[in-house]
Parts: sequence; structure tokens; C-alpha cells
Amino acid sequence: MPNFDLPRRLAAEALGTALLVATVVGSGIMAESLTKDVALALLGNTLPTGAILVVLITILGPISGAHFNPVVSLVFALRRELAPRDALLYVAAQVAGGIAGTVMAHAMFALPLVDASLKVRTGGAQWLAEAVAAFGLVATILAGIRFNRSAVPWLVGLYITAAYWFTASTSFANPAVAIARSMTNTFSGIRPADLPGFIAAETCGAIVAMIFMGWLLHGGGKAITKEAHP
Amino acid sequence: MPNFDLPRRLAAEALGTALLVATVVGSGIMAESLTKDVALALLGNTLPTGAILVVLITILGPISGAHFNPVVSLVFALRRELAPRDALLYVAAQVAGGIAGTVMAHAMFALPLVDASLKVRTGGAQWLAEAVAAFGLVATILAGIRFNRSAVPWLVGLYITAAYWFTASTSFANPAVAIARSMTNTFSGIRPADLPGFIAAETCGAIVAMIFMGWLLHGGGKAITKEAHP
Amino acid sequence: MPNFDLPRRLAAEALGTALLVATVVGSGIMAESLTKDVALALLGNTLPTGAILVVLITILGPISGAHFNPVVSLVFALRRELAPRDALLYVAAQVAGGIAGTVMAHAMFALPLVDASLKVRTGGAQWLAEAVAAFGLVATILAGIRFNRSAVPWLVGLYITAAYWFTASTSFANPAVAIARSMTNTFSGIRPADLPGFIAAETCGAIVAMIFMGWLLHGGGKAITKEAHP
Amino acid sequence: MPNFDLPRRLAAEALGTALLVATVVGSGIMAESLTKDVALALLGNTLPTGAILVVLITILGPISGAHFNPVVSLVFALRRELAPRDALLYVAAQVAGGIAGTVMAHAMFALPLVDASLKVRTGGAQWLAEAVAAFGLVATILAGIRFNRSAVPWLVGLYITAAYWFTASTSFANPAVAIARSMTNTFSGIRPADLPGFIAAETCGAIVAMIFMGWLLHGGGKAITKEAHP
Repeated sequence: MPNFDLPRRLAAEALGTALLVATVVGSGIMAESLTKDVALALLGNTLPTGAILVVLITILGPISGAHFNPVVSLVFALRRELAPRDALLYVAAQVAGGIAGTVMAHAMFALPLVDASLKVRTGGAQWLAEAVAAFGLVATILAGIRFNRSAVPWLVGLYITAAYWFTASTSFANPAVAIARSMTNTFSGIRPADLPGFIAAETCGAIVAMIFMGWLLHGGGKAITKEAHP
Repeated sequence: MPNFDLPRRLAAEALGTALLVATVVGSGIMAESLTKDVALALLGNTLPTGAILVVLITILGPISGAHFNPVVSLVFALRRELAPRDALLYVAAQVAGGIAGTVMAHAMFALPLVDASLKVRTGGAQWLAEAVAAFGLVATILAGIRFNRSAVPWLVGLYITAAYWFTASTSFANPAVAIARSMTNTFSGIRPADLPGFIAAETCGAIVAMIFMGWLLHGGGKAITKEAHP
Repeated sequence: MPNFDLPRRLAAEALGTALLVATVVGSGIMAESLTKDVALALLGNTLPTGAILVVLITILGPISGAHFNPVVSLVFALRRELAPRDALLYVAAQVAGGIAGTVMAHAMFALPLVDASLKVRTGGAQWLAEAVAAFGLVATILAGIRFNRSAVPWLVGLYITAAYWFTASTSFANPAVAIARSMTNTFSGIRPADLPGFIAAETCGAIVAMIFMGWLLHGGGKAITKEAHP
Repeated sequence: MPNFDLPRRLAAEALGTALLVATVVGSGIMAESLTKDVALALLGNTLPTGAILVVLITILGPISGAHFNPVVSLVFALRRELAPRDALLYVAAQVAGGIAGTVMAHAMFALPLVDASLKVRTGGAQWLAEAVAAFGLVATILAGIRFNRSAVPWLVGLYITAAYWFTASTSFANPAVAIARSMTNTFSGIRPADLPGFIAAETCGAIVAMIFMGWLLHGGGKAITKEAHP
């Protein structure tokens, strides 16, 4: 499938991450500006994020795989499904795209283009939440590819919709998105100083998921690849 | 596929745009009348719009292509997938249908049938938002058709669900709908004087998307057209 | 397909209408008891209704066609796709099931089992709204069956999700459900005296849709029946 | 299909129930901490639960059947589709997984790992609600498997989305989840003393559904198993 050339694949990763971050940051700004109820603001942040993920993974997945996330690219590199050099370029495209997404959201809402976040997100409970969030995301992707590849866009969109609420950290689960969100002092921001803890926790969760799902999915005969559904 | 005759295709464009606008305007009136929380009103405007788009594109797409949007018809005309004369007639049907949609919504809510909006929506940030909104819409449609045609109704519904929140303009992304919305002085309205800026921005965003996606989607071998999913 | 015997088909119509009404009435009671914001209550009424429709039409459609609605059965009878006698029995099962649904909802919420509604819903704007609601419902069903039969449960669920908000009447669009809702003096109720206007408007809207869609869908060569999607 | 070995099947049941309970409990804690509006909190509890069910049943169903629920395993055992010994082990895995889910949610939100609930949920109306909830769940699963197996994850997620609102008990419908929820003194909790009533009602509802659907689905010729959709 990945017979698109590398420039197009990198462009897809950058564009997808940019639109994902623009949605996360932009909908957070919109929501926060319209209500004082924080649960409602989170809802106004959740639904657009889940929705855009379904769209972006469907339309860009056939080009680049639609990782939009360094820990996902890392997992595929460790599984030898992505060349190490390509993985590094993917991560660079994701980080650059993510930052462009924050800038784009700020420009649309007439805010300074970048503005370091002051929102504290740190401590063991938050790190555990990020590890759980990344574990679930990688488990969803690996099992989804194994059992029902065409449903993966929906599975990821729905997983993140849930994880925004069931993890105490609202489920960043993505180092590129976390870096981009450190540059917005709005609803979805994270203090730059808190990035290392988040990124380390996300990486741990992803690797544990890769190992555990490697065991869980090993067996059961040949893959069921033709099943069509939502 | 478009072996329906022109009158039926135009009727489908007019009916679809009318129901789309009736939903946007009507749900805005309903939401605004039931709550003082603007985020909640926007949610009550977003969900019906996203839902009706999935329905309308599924049931009218096989007849007319379900554009409901002049910039979409423009893009297909520029790609030589729609004859210029048909494109002009499509646009006329969309505009007429859209206005009928506003009138229908007003009649259902016992309001004056047309009422010019006083809601100011102008300035560079709003225009950028409209350009981004139209860019994303056209990118979604073109890539969706390329990779997973049967998912297009869902992709457009989900994209607009997200774009209502992540663009500062709540994503009109549609000149016919914008014109129709200039005739309602309710939640979803736009001042008639602000139409030219919106329409210009939407057109620019759509054309940039057409050019960019023309490059991005060029390659990757033959289209994957048979994949079935949600 | 309808090779289930008549008792099972009638049981499916009664069960489906009962669960539909229990959802409409029950979620209205729940929502109203938890919030003072009416838009939020309507949202808490809308999402369960849309969701249960997808479920009920999917699981009971193969047995009875999943009409759950006298005007839908009327349309199929007029199109000679349902025998007149069966249509009458369907309507009886729907009305009986609907009333059982109200009783069941009241029992679950520890309310008197039936309680005539005092909620006024009358006048030309409301009737227009009901006609539009039924028009859209029947148009959705007929075009959905024509172009993408397997998507019909989703189309109906999404259509009603939208119509709860864009019609001024919150889209009853169903005489059996309207009768059942006249027996609950809660969020979703309707005054018994207002039933005739609603039922007449719904019937008109449904018949206009049948005629209009009969024209619109006539043409386009053979049906596209195998397309699989969400 | 169930050609995964027993340890993997039990691991799938435990993991799925853990993530389900973590979502129910975690999103309840999140929602309650962000708003004073109980309807909004229930919405913030509902959407993640419905979403994660679609994900978990899709990704773990091919391994274990994705019961995550003792009454579902009981029904399959009574139908002789699951060996009695396996059913007992399934239930043990579900209960253990559920408790782990509560502990995980508490750890992510920095709460004491277990904390007996004080929330009273008892009485005939609540028990009726649980019986109805379990009836609907089992009916959905059995008819879904019969008519459209690939849609079952969506059907269950949508059913529970509706049942959270239309049943007075917010639809536990699951003894393993109920036990796990007795260990959290937060939004989604249930007093341990109220467990027996809930579990008995759920079991009754499930068995009535099994018997009724056994009759309703008997007939109609051979199963329609190949239909693909959302």
C-alpha cells in the first residue's frame, strides 16, 4: 500500500498533524470563549477531536499510514514495519506540522501566533494517565489493524473520544501534539516544563502495549482481513 | 453513475441545500431559544448539521453528487468532472434551495419569512478561518472520493462537526449556505455586507485545496475503490 | 426477506415501538430531572433516541421491516409493498407497543403508569414542522432503501437526531409515538387534544414525500444494491 | 473463530472489562469534577462509555467474544455456545478485570485505590430498570449476531448510550461492572449492599431476553451473515 513517495508521505504526516492540532487547540479556544462550564468546554473539545481523527486517518492513511504521532511511528519502527530513517523523518514532519497547527489555530482566533502555556500538568497520577492513554491507543491500533483494518479510523476517533474523559490528563497520548500544545496558553495547553514527563510516560505506555499486544494477538490463525464494516 | 436527468439532479441539489440550511438555521433558532449558554447552543447547532449531512449526501449523492455547495461544484467544473453549464445550474439550484431552507425554518418557528442578519462576521481572522474551513472540506471530499467513496457522507458530516468548533467562523465553507444565512437574524446569521469576504475566502481555500490535493493524491498507483466501510 | 411469520413480525413492531417510546419518554424524564437547562435536556433526549433507532432498525428490520410508525406502514401499503390487512395489524401493534413503552418508562421512574399530558403543541407552525419532519423521514427511508439499504438504520437515527432540533415540534413524525407521548405528563408529552393536528400533518408530509420521491428516484437505471457502508 | 487459547481469551476478557470500568468510573470522576450540572455529568459519562464499547468489542471480540459481562457469558453458556468451565473462568476474569479498572481509574485521578460507595440504588423501580436494561442488551447482542455480526460493536455501544438515559438506573446491566462500581465512592458508584438486587434483576432480564429472542429469531430461513455495514 505505501507506494506513495516519501515527500507525499511526509506531507501527509505534516498536514494531518497540523489539522489535528488545529482542531484540538482551536476547539479548545472556541469552547472556552463560549462557556464557563468546564465540562461543556471539554465536550466542545472532545467531539471535534474525535470527529477529525476519523476524517484524517481515512483520507491520509492510504498515503502515509496516518500516524500523526511519534510513539506510533516508534512502534512501527520497532516492529520493523517502518524504516528507521523514515521514522525519524515522520517524527520531524509530525512535530513541524503540529506546531504549524497551533500557529494556524491562533491566527484564526486572532491570538499571538505562539504563546507558551502556563497550565501545570505534572505528577505521578498525570503520568500514569498518559501511560494508560498511550497504551490504549497503541493497543487499539495494533488490534484494529489485525482484525478490522478498515475500521481503524473510527476506532481511533472513538478511543480518543473516550480517553479525553477517562484519563485524568485528558489523553494527550502523543508527543508531537504535546509539544504543539505547549505553545498555546489556552484551554488545551501544557507548560513546556511538563513535556518531558508526558513524553516519557507516553513512550512507556506505547512500548508496554506493543509487547503485550504482541503476545495477545499472537495466535488465532490467519488474519481476518476482508471483513467489512463501520 | 450520474445517469439521472438534469431536472432530477437540480431538484436533488435544491432539496439537499434546502434541508441543510433548514437544519443549520432551524437548529440554531431552537438552541438559542432553549439555553443561554452559547457553547451549548453551538453544540445544538453542530450535531444536527453533522447528522443531516451524512443523511443528505447518502440519499441524494447518487442522483446529483450531493454538492449542495457552489465551491464544490466549481472544483468539479475545474477538474472537468462537471460541465460548465451544469455547474452554473447547480449553483443556481443551490442558492435557490438555500434561501428556501431559511424560509422553511422561519415558517416552522413562526418567524418573519426573511429577516436580514445583523451579525457581524468580518476581518482577516474570520476570512482565514473560512479559507481553512473550505480547504479542509475540499481536501476531505477529494481524498475521500479517491480512497473510500462510500465513506464520503460520513467524512463530510464529521469534518463539518469538527470545523464548527475549530474554525473561528464556525465554518460556513459554502457560499450558497452563507447567502441563505444572511437572511436570518438568528443564531446562525451573517450580515449581508459580510458575504463577499466570506465567499472570496471560501473560494480561495477550495482552489488551494484542489491544487494541493491534486499533487498529494497523484501517485500511489490505481485507486482503491472497492474498500467497504463506515 | 420478510419470511418471518406474521406473529413474529407483529411482535417485532410492538417491541420496537415500545423500546423506542420507552427511550423517548424515559430519557426525557431522566434529562428533565437532572438539569434546568432545556437545551441540555433536549440533548439528553436526542442522543438516546437517535442511538436506539440505529439499534432497533438493525435488529428488528430483518423481521418486520422495522417501521415502528403508522405513516411508514401507510406509505408501504400505498406502494403495494405491504398488504392492507398487514398494514392495519402493523399499526395496531405499533400503537399498542407505544403505549406499553410509556407505561414501562413510567414504571422504571416510579411514576403513575399513565398520566395525560398538559403540554400544548398546536398551531400552524407546529403542524408545518410535523409535516416537514415526516416528509424528511419518508424521503430518507425511500431513498435509503433505493441506494444503500444497509445504511438505513443509521440514516434514520441520524435524521431524527437532526430533526429533534431543526423542526419547531422536535419532530414526532410518528402517530403511534405521538399517541404514546400523550399519556406522559413529562418532558416529551403532548396534550391529547393536540394529537389530531399532529397526526394529520404527519400523514400529509409522508404522502407528499412518497409522491415527490417517487418522481425523484424514478430513473437512474437499475438500483445500486450491493454497496456496503456505514 | 475462537481459536485463541484460553489464557489469551481470559486476558482479553479481563483487559476489556478493566478498560470498560476504567472508562465508566474515570469519566464519571472527570465529569463530576468539572460541572455542577448532573445532566452534563451524565453526558460526559455516557459518550465515553458508548465510544469505548465500540472499540473494545471490535478489538477484543475476535479473541474472546468480548463479553465483559457475566450475564452475557451466562446466556452463551445456557445456549451451549460456551463451555460451563470456560464461562466460570470468563466471569472470574471479568470480575477481576473490573476491580482492576476501578483501581486504575482511582490511581489516575489520585484517589484512594478502593473506596466503598455510599450511593443508594435500590427498590423496585431501579430493579425493573436493570431488568429492562439487561433485556435490551441481550436482545441487541443475540439479534445483532443473527442479522449483522460485524455491526455488534456499534449496536452495543449505541444501546448503552441510550440505556444510560432511558433506564432509571443508568443501565449497569452487568454484574462484573456493578461489583467494580461498588468500590468507588464517586459519580458512578453503587452501595455494596445494593449489589444483590441489581445482579438478580440483571440476570432475570438477560434470561427473559434469551427466551423471548429464541422465539422471535426462530424462523426466517438461514442467517444473513454476509451483509456488511456500519
